[in-house]
Amino acid sequence: MNLSHYWKARQGEVEAALNTLIPKEKTRPATIHKAMRYSLFAGGKRLRPILVLAASEAISGRYRDALPLACAVECIHTYSLIHDDLPCMDNDDLRRGMPTSHKVFGEGIAVLAGDALLTIAFEMVAKAKAAKRYHHGALVLELAEVSGSQKLIGGQVADTEGEGKKISPADLRYIHENKTAALITGSLRLGAMSANATAKQLDAITDFGLSLGLAFQVIDDILDVTQTSEQLGKSAGKDIAAQKATYPSILGMAKAQKEAARLTKKANDALKVFGAKGETLRAIAGYMLERKN
Amino acid sequence: MNLSHYWKARQGEVEAALNTLIPKEKTRPATIHKAMRYSLFAGGKRLRPILVLAASEAISGRYRDALPLACAVECIHTYSLIHDDLPCMDNDDLRRGMPTSHKVFGEGIAVLAGDALLTIAFEMVAKAKAAKRYHHGALVLELAEVSGSQKLIGGQVADTEGEGKKISPADLRYIHENKTAALITGSLRLGAMSANATAKQLDAITDFGLSLGLAFQVIDDILDVTQTSEQLGKSAGKDIAAQKATYPSILGMAKAQKEAARLTKKANDALKVFGAKGETLRAIAGYMLERKN
Repeated sequence: MNLSHYWKARQGEVEAALNTLIPKEKTRPATIHKAMRYSLFAGGKRLRPILVLAASEAISGRYRDALPLACAVECIHTYSLIHDDLPCMDNDDLRRGMPTSHKVFGEGIAVLAGDALLTIAFEMVAKAKAAKRYHHGALVLELAEVSGSQKLIGGQVADTEGEGKKISPADLRYIHENKTAALITGSLRLGAMSANATAKQLDAITDFGLSLGLAFQVIDDILDVTQTSEQLGKSAGKDIAAQKATYPSILGMAKAQKEAARLTKKANDALKVFGAKGETLRAIAGYMLERKN
Repeated sequence: MNLSHYWKARQGEVEAALNTLIPKEKTRPATIHKAMRYSLFAGGKRLRPILVLAASEAISGRYRDALPLACAVECIHTYSLIHDDLPCMDNDDLRRGMPTSHKVFGEGIAVLAGDALLTIAFEMVAKAKAAKRYHHGALVLELAEVSGSQKLIGGQVADTEGEGKKISPADLRYIHENKTAALITGSLRLGAMSANATAKQLDAITDFGLSLGLAFQVIDDILDVTQTSEQLGKSAGKDIAAQKATYPSILGMAKAQKEAARLTKKANDALKVFGAKGETLRAIAGYMLERKN
């Protein structure tokens, strides 16, 4: 399959849907909607929403049932970036090659824009069509759990607290599983749920997600060392500057690369149950391993 | 009826339920759960959750169906206080007589604790029992809308942007309707929805909420001028210090007090449809008008 063609098409569809679902720039009060849109349309890869759509396809789900959920996870992801970039957290000036939200709108509006994106994500789920096996309560619970204090937010807390400290490989795995793999897995699960997945299909998607999510973060750690800020579109070398533990710093570069390949293989093994229908997810996992930003 | 007895009993029940629904302090990562609990159990009046419960009672709803929704709105309210108190917003050191979250845990954790409370609110709604007329999608949509960029967050944005500027009575009303009245109305509506309210009952609860919510804010503005920090349990006189437009500053104190009484009467008129069952809500509106903190 031609992944880059697929990706571009899906990216466009997700962005068109987001444009419909997020209040226009002039909607009162304009500042908050400008700020929400600034970060949401700053040229993200749209990995998580594309995972929602691809997981739905693997189970022959209907595209339009998965799309609002795809938009919801992108809002969650974007909110977490805005808040992580704040001066009181990672203090980052650059994101996707552009000034971060607080650099453009000030810290107060950046906090509120993150809050608003987090909130509207649940509105999108509430407005989505529920599947037979998974009513709105199940969909909202899934999104709230993977975004909550024991997953996405918990991972960020552990990450922040680990800075400058010697942490164990187990602690590093905890951070990555929660800060990154949880929302990636949740995205895939929401796509599968919108397609009315059986328990067996949902289990397979979950296994795929956990391995893919960890692989994604190992590769992110590697790219932070090997690529320039220009190549990444965000500040490179910041893990070292912040004395953050990463896979390369704990395992060494060669072992980290091996671990990424091992996790990718494990992810692909989980897709067997979907047969040919898992092709897109397999292609995405392969692309993740080879990506340069 | 003995409102203070009722209030104390409901307060205790809401706090017991919150204690069950929020992860324990030691749950990993401990910092975030400590911070969530610190602000949630800092001695709030629990007005909004009590409005959820009282609205449910006015329609003969079952107490245990309304309780998770009561906890959800208290989490939303608490998150909004934590974020509003941040140095990049109102920069407040004192809340309910105690140091604010960022003073105790640092700004980064305060931002994340707010995020986590916002997120868990939706988890609570997802786990609540839905009523016949209002499924989980409707309940989540209600909470997301009143908390979103055009209501709660929008009001905070307009409030921040209005500081130090001359604003019109209409702008002031916009701020109060969204920053305060929206969540108060949403709380009442969620309680009514959990009791399977008819459209007519829900309309009456909505009218009550909008008037009560505005009255509440007018009185808050008045108390900021007339009470000491000790009496309020939060910094008094801060509206004047921040050059914020308030009802007393725009209308004068006498007219502001008249407006509060007028809104309270309007709120009570909306309760007629509930007959004797609206007694608790009526008592709450009366108490709001007379309160000293």
